[in-house]
Amino acid sequence: MSGSTFGNRFRITTWGESHGAAIGAVIDGCPAGLPLEAEDIQAFLDRRKPGQSRFTTKRQESDQVEILSGTFEGRTTGTSISLLVRNQDQRSRDYGNIASVYRPGHADYTYTQKYGFRDYRGGGRSSGRETIGRVAGGAVASHILRELGVVLTTYAKAVGPVEVPEEEYRFEEIFQNKLYMPSNQRAAEASSYLEAMMKNLDSCGGVIECRVAGLPAGIGEPVFEKLDACLGKALLSIGAVKAVEFGDGIKAARLNGSQNNDAFFMENGTVKKKTNHAGGILGGMSDGDTLVMRASVKPTPSIAQPQQTVTENGEDTELVIHGRHDPIIVPRAVVVVESMAALTLVDLLLQNMGSRMEHLRKLYL
Amino acid sequence: MSGSTFGNRFRITTWGESHGAAIGAVIDGCPAGLPLEAEDIQAFLDRRKPGQSRFTTKRQESDQVEILSGTFEGRTTGTSISLLVRNQDQRSRDYGNIASVYRPGHADYTYTQKYGFRDYRGGGRSSGRETIGRVAGGAVASHILRELGVVLTTYAKAVGPVEVPEEEYRFEEIFQNKLYMPSNQRAAEASSYLEAMMKNLDSCGGVIECRVAGLPAGIGEPVFEKLDACLGKALLSIGAVKAVEFGDGIKAARLNGSQNNDAFFMENGTVKKKTNHAGGILGGMSDGDTLVMRASVKPTPSIAQPQQTVTENGEDTELVIHGRHDPIIVPRAVVVVESMAALTLVDLLLQNMGSRMEHLRKLYL
Amino acid sequence: MSGSTFGNRFRITTWGESHGAAIGAVIDGCPAGLPLEAEDIQAFLDRRKPGQSRFTTKRQESDQVEILSGTFEGRTTGTSISLLVRNQDQRSRDYGNIASVYRPGHADYTYTQKYGFRDYRGGGRSSGRETIGRVAGGAVASHILRELGVVLTTYAKAVGPVEVPEEEYRFEEIFQNKLYMPSNQRAAEASSYLEAMMKNLDSCGGVIECRVAGLPAGIGEPVFEKLDACLGKALLSIGAVKAVEFGDGIKAARLNGSQNNDAFFMENGTVKKKTNHAGGILGGMSDGDTLVMRASVKPTPSIAQPQQTVTENGEDTELVIHGRHDPIIVPRAVVVVESMAALTLVDLLLQNMGSRMEHLRKLYL
Amino acid sequence: MSGSTFGNRFRITTWGESHGAAIGAVIDGCPAGLPLEAEDIQAFLDRRKPGQSRFTTKRQESDQVEILSGTFEGRTTGTSISLLVRNQDQRSRDYGNIASVYRPGHADYTYTQKYGFRDYRGGGRSSGRETIGRVAGGAVASHILRELGVVLTTYAKAVGPVEVPEEEYRFEEIFQNKLYMPSNQRAAEASSYLEAMMKNLDSCGGVIECRVAGLPAGIGEPVFEKLDACLGKALLSIGAVKAVEFGDGIKAARLNGSQNNDAFFMENGTVKKKTNHAGGILGGMSDGDTLVMRASVKPTPSIAQPQQTVTENGEDTELVIHGRHDPIIVPRAVVVVESMAALTLVDLLLQNMGSRMEHLRKLYL
Repeated sequence: MSGSTFGNRFRITTWGESHGAAIGAVIDGCPAGLPLEAEDIQAFLDRRKPGQSRFTTKRQESDQVEILSGTFEGRTTGTSISLLVRNQDQRSRDYGNIASVYRPGHADYTYTQKYGFRDYRGGGRSSGRETIGRVAGGAVASHILRELGVVLTTYAKAVGPVEVPEEEYRFEEIFQNKLYMPSNQRAAEASSYLEAMMKNLDSCGGVIECRVAGLPAGIGEPVFEKLDACLGKALLSIGAVKAVEFGDGIKAARLNGSQNNDAFFMENGTVKKKTNHAGGILGGMSDGDTLVMRASVKPTPSIAQPQQTVTENGEDTELVIHGRHDPIIVPRAVVVVESMAALTLVDLLLQNMGSRMEHLRKLYL
Repeated sequence: MSGSTFGNRFRITTWGESHGAAIGAVIDGCPAGLPLEAEDIQAFLDRRKPGQSRFTTKRQESDQVEILSGTFEGRTTGTSISLLVRNQDQRSRDYGNIASVYRPGHADYTYTQKYGFRDYRGGGRSSGRETIGRVAGGAVASHILRELGVVLTTYAKAVGPVEVPEEEYRFEEIFQNKLYMPSNQRAAEASSYLEAMMKNLDSCGGVIECRVAGLPAGIGEPVFEKLDACLGKALLSIGAVKAVEFGDGIKAARLNGSQNNDAFFMENGTVKKKTNHAGGILGGMSDGDTLVMRASVKPTPSIAQPQQTVTENGEDTELVIHGRHDPIIVPRAVVVVESMAALTLVDLLLQNMGSRMEHLRKLYL
Repeated sequence: MSGSTFGNRFRITTWGESHGAAIGAVIDGCPAGLPLEAEDIQAFLDRRKPGQSRFTTKRQESDQVEILSGTFEGRTTGTSISLLVRNQDQRSRDYGNIASVYRPGHADYTYTQKYGFRDYRGGGRSSGRETIGRVAGGAVASHILRELGVVLTTYAKAVGPVEVPEEEYRFEEIFQNKLYMPSNQRAAEASSYLEAMMKNLDSCGGVIECRVAGLPAGIGEPVFEKLDACLGKALLSIGAVKAVEFGDGIKAARLNGSQNNDAFFMENGTVKKKTNHAGGILGGMSDGDTLVMRASVKPTPSIAQPQQTVTENGEDTELVIHGRHDPIIVPRAVVVVESMAALTLVDLLLQNMGSRMEHLRKLYL
Repeated sequence: MSGSTFGNRFRITTWGESHGAAIGAVIDGCPAGLPLEAEDIQAFLDRRKPGQSRFTTKRQESDQVEILSGTFEGRTTGTSISLLVRNQDQRSRDYGNIASVYRPGHADYTYTQKYGFRDYRGGGRSSGRETIGRVAGGAVASHILRELGVVLTTYAKAVGPVEVPEEEYRFEEIFQNKLYMPSNQRAAEASSYLEAMMKNLDSCGGVIECRVAGLPAGIGEPVFEKLDACLGKALLSIGAVKAVEFGDGIKAARLNGSQNNDAFFMENGTVKKKTNHAGGILGGMSDGDTLVMRASVKPTPSIAQPQQTVTENGEDTELVIHGRHDPIIVPRAVVVVESMAALTLVDLLLQNMGSRMEHLRKLYL
């Protein structure tokens, strides 16, 4: 399989390079009859747009999306949906030594090893701008989920060393600060941390958490297409993500079974869990409880400090990266994580439709 | 897509339930001409076999594998390879309340929600015995990797709270203790911890780490089939895994770019990295350095302590699980992690073959 | 993708060689709650079993199927179903020059070119016995279709030069003659033709037709997964099939639009077609009318006449094939065609479930 | 799987409607280092462009292609290639009763049944303009094949009742007549036939044949991904194709084994076949001989004669279709057939690369 397609029943295929003519996505398998306008998608793209705060690249891109196919009179037709975003900022410039040097922490070296050469303009396909296609597709997926009562909430759980503990979580504050943290106070702390860090010409990472409410139980396919396996792949496919956790995640490895098991009990005739260490997933399927996943994001590799590296010709050299780079990508990556989660969930909801003979009878008899 | 198939170019399809007649796997896409005998596979299966130590279930299963197709005169023919392991221990027994009660931490509830009913015999398809098929397939994949000079080393990095710090890592000791820890001393500590824990009728989890040496650079497909995304899905598809990390993993989120970037330098004409925070992966492709991945395993949900839960009829109840259960699955899961990693790597090595026109010319002209 | 898996949402993976230990199939994606016993599958296998008439190989095989997984208390559980058929007739024998010579019309040469060597025992994986796995899977698919009111009727439309014209079609006679022809009189003619042909140590082909009634309209996905495209691939994947037609098939190429278009009209409030030149398919989707497809089967390549060929060492030679071979495979291939059609239809019925938002709402809200 | 993606290792995803903003394709899995300019693709598109002769629609479309991604400095980079063709002729017009009536022979009825409504503007996604994406992708595939010495020749074997017998085949004349027939004399006959037919406000079909030279032996995967099965699906996915044949095709069903088997013999140290009844395919793999396949194309359903049909509201009515329609699509469909064949062959050539361990050793050791 080629790497630019994600999903089985609900599929997104993305394309485009950082400094190419445009970036886009084709969505296939979208159910017919979904109300869909460009604005629905634009709202998502605006959450990842550069220039939202002093902590993001100054690159000026309006990233306006155009729907080229798959809708008619404001509704999806069931056929493939093509989404296009033109790159405005593609002025040819002198890439200087970037063109002939491998930037540490970037894909320059590995792409060259794989393909024999590379598109050195801003990282080409390995650039963060590739995520525009994901977010455009994620917007459509979220739209479907909303119609089914499935709601995703995503935010920056931590920025560098500054973390929002569970007890300080404030849903309503997520969109009140530029860092999308669920605590304005922690966001302020994080901002000062970022200021200092930027003075050192350095960058940092963080943690993005996504919670999903309203997902029916039983979503996910045994044994290799488990809900957590699919979501994990989705999140790990985002450039800077180095770890993924579900529920208690790595902490679960230190717990005992008596602590980690979530006891079931009845409440108003429905099955509930007293705790949610499992993060809403049992045996690779949703258990009806809130889904909780986290992605650890590494610091932006592009920093202005001098770095040791090598040239394509195999000579040691020192590199200083100039130009516009996010000191932290976490705030802009929040909507990317939400998009990948949404794409995965719609795909699995569609796959699950044929899980019982009674579902087929309901639809075909 | 259905969930029992893993891989694209190199595929494994597994089947079988805990108390069914047998468990097996079909491998498709295995290159022709690979020397393969049942012993090659048996060696892997023996690493996950029950009854190896007092920390694993007493269930007696020899788990003998039979090759039913795909080989001729000791070599693979290029056609699908069918592997079969008969279940010996399937004596019909009274499953007591297990049949009508949802065990906390297990898939009983979610399978029932998905399918309308479930095979309650020992968890059916959601049982750990399902991994026999993975390990059988992983043995074949490892066999291929060895021929290409790619070597996997997998071990228990942590058992409950007892962890082996990097500086105490001893490769040669991994197979010298029943817990497959790379430190006999830490293994001894872990054993005493397990003894105490078992007295409390409790269970625990741990961390499994896998290192891959000899992998060429450039393996992994942009953008959704990244090496880490595929490996992450592979590991997260293992029942009890709640988190996956690559290189520094979650620690990377707290580092600065200047700390996390691995500087390149030349050594005897080849590109090297001074450090390996990235865990051998840049931009979703192998960078030629050692691959490092970790899976956090939750504690075994089956414990003998009384637990609160509900019945299929929606009544609150208390459950006491009897019978044979691993107080910790980490030691037996080590080879499962290695198998899933091997399956993923062979699949991506095959997919990578067509990455350059020069490769096609070399093969077809 | 590897070649031994068929289908996307409803998948079958087959394995096994002519003279290996066994042959089998794994079905994944089968909805839960389908009543399924070994007899349901055996009935299908018996239709392709050798030794049914003097026109089929004398090879003695009872081809008894065993269900190894995926069912519990007589119903499918939703997990992968493993089906096994042991090969009884695998006595090692002297394959004589077959082992070192390329049989005309067989896969000996092409398999050797692809893999570097081949399993020469009775054709190995390229043997007609491979279809046992397809038929076992097809039986399960047909079972699902029957529950949805979709009924397949398959028969030998022609045996060599003897064809059953539409006006002579007798449904009830299909199972009254050993050739599965819908006309006992034509079957008698065909039998005499076969007798004469066998005297000449020759073989012949024929045409198999399949009609599907009760298929809802709208099944099939635009643009590459069209109903006819998927069915065509399914039928052409059967060893000896050299052509596939839908409705008027090749005759349509000579018709005018005014002759070929099927006029719509209303009947008791439902849309009907006056004719069915289209064979029940418009724009790659079922139109609610009877599906009509035909497969042209080439003559059995194994004949007892001396044939010119070459050895693996590149020497010209003359070959005389001894032993048991079907002078015509059409009668036994009838159920193989029906099986492949059934597998395709179930796959597309499942894929179609998510075609409308209203279907998702019906199932999830 | 969704229907707008074709191929596994070499993939094309198409999108776009007849009267939407644009039509396009995304190619993924294209090897890096292939020289590729827009002109290479334009040359293919021009072969299907409307208005080439008086036998094709008068619709004016220049169908200029734009490469939006996947190339750098005139070579493919290995990442997804996005191709875009703007629709010029999308003037909103009164579609009259077309909007509320089901055209016989078209997908109007089936799309409405599947999705609950349809894009009635010129057939939307089911329009022949959808093939622009296929042809753009096919141009890239053909480009790869040429580099490997694989050459496709495609032409109109028959137009309505006028067929070019094998003995009259003239390769050099294919591009000398507007009908792409390999015989100028038969093309002249066909032209007069078409003139007469057009006077009757009627349409007709024909047969397209494709020959492939230079394909190595062993291409195609057992058992479901056979070369003929994959090619058959590719051709049958083209709107108007009702039958597909390989080699002798349907004639093979009437031959005897002694006539149909192609004898092998040695010529200058290589294995040859005395005849090619098999059409270059044995056991689902290429045998090194010329590949021969044929597609039977139905007559254009859009005719100006009054036709009986029904409205979306279920009333019988009479329909007269006005406007620009091809009386025959065969000439323009020639390049579509060639494109689908090329896409299939590249996909299988890439899949075949991992068929032997020695191939992996050659590439990785």
